[in-house]
Amino acid sequence: MAKMDFPLSEVYGLLETGPVVLITSHVNGKRDVMAQSWHTMVEFEPAIVACVVSDRNFSHELILESGECVLNIPTFEIAEKVVGCGNASGRDLDKFAKFGLAVSPASLVGAPLLDECYASLECRVFDRIPAYELFLLQVVKAWVDPDVADPKTLHHRGFGAFMIAGETARFPSAMK
Amino acid sequence: MAKMDFPLSEVYGLLETGPVVLITSHVNGKRDVMAQSWHTMVEFEPAIVACVVSDRNFSHELILESGECVLNIPTFEIAEKVVGCGNASGRDLDKFAKFGLAVSPASLVGAPLLDECYASLECRVFDRIPAYELFLLQVVKAWVDPDVADPKTLHHRGFGAFMIAGETARFPSAMK
Repeated sequence: MAKMDFPLSEVYGLLETGPVVLITSHVNGKRDVMAQSWHTMVEFEPAIVACVVSDRNFSHELILESGECVLNIPTFEIAEKVVGCGNASGRDLDKFAKFGLAVSPASLVGAPLLDECYASLECRVFDRIPAYELFLLQVVKAWVDPDVADPKTLHHRGFGAFMIAGETARFPSAMK
Repeated sequence: MAKMDFPLSEVYGLLETGPVVLITSHVNGKRDVMAQSWHTMVEFEPAIVACVVSDRNFSHELILESGECVLNIPTFEIAEKVVGCGNASGRDLDKFAKFGLAVSPASLVGAPLLDECYASLECRVFDRIPAYELFLLQVVKAWVDPDVADPKTLHHRGFGAFMIAGETARFPSAMK
């Protein structure tokens, strides 16, 4: 997929639908990718995302040490890889190799972009709320494949059941 | 719709797909209903949801004063009412009357359940993080229509564009 620079002020539209994201992280030769559904926008500009990453996840220490990560948004085409990432721990194996996830370097952070994801959001840790295992992530650079108009994103319903994004309906709206 | 008692331990599966919710609130004769997409689960049990409600929203003062609200999950059938709620303020009009939203009393909180929503989650304010306008809501009672297996939930993409929930795919998974 050929991803292009995407305006940070429009990032909320990618995330507020609630897709599963694949969070990549990298520090000191260690890397991980985790499947995650517990995130929400909290601010439009700067684009800030609150994201639960438990300290039981291997990614937690990598994000904490590096202060960075990338939120990659997968679609149905790679659902089996997403499920694979969700069922394994990066402590035990290199999930990139195991699931054949091709990567490209990010521009502003050390964590990689996942080539097969239609969107990748480079993030820096802006703040934390340890009581709820929340990282507040500021999106500092966004990449989106402009050819994907209606991405078939995955939306986890629990225990490996995923709702796949359907059609888009448009209404006159004053809402941002 | 005939909603039935639903296990609190399974509530996350209703919300982690990222649907638009209609938040109802009620205090001292004032009531409101707002459309909202910025929420995430933060804990399975107790079921705790982090939810952004700005102090610019009329609902903010009602939720703060009462310490309660209900998260109702609408489907495509009432999309026009959802858009209407998102485009109006409860300071100016009674949105329940304006958009013809039928209500029923909740069992544990003062805010009403919306009859046309397939799921309604009675919540108490558990904590707040004012820096990010986050309310931490504990779901204390959940109601779901058992006849709705694959709800056509709405997922906001911005400016009145809504992705409508598509099919569900199931994979073997160790994930909760």
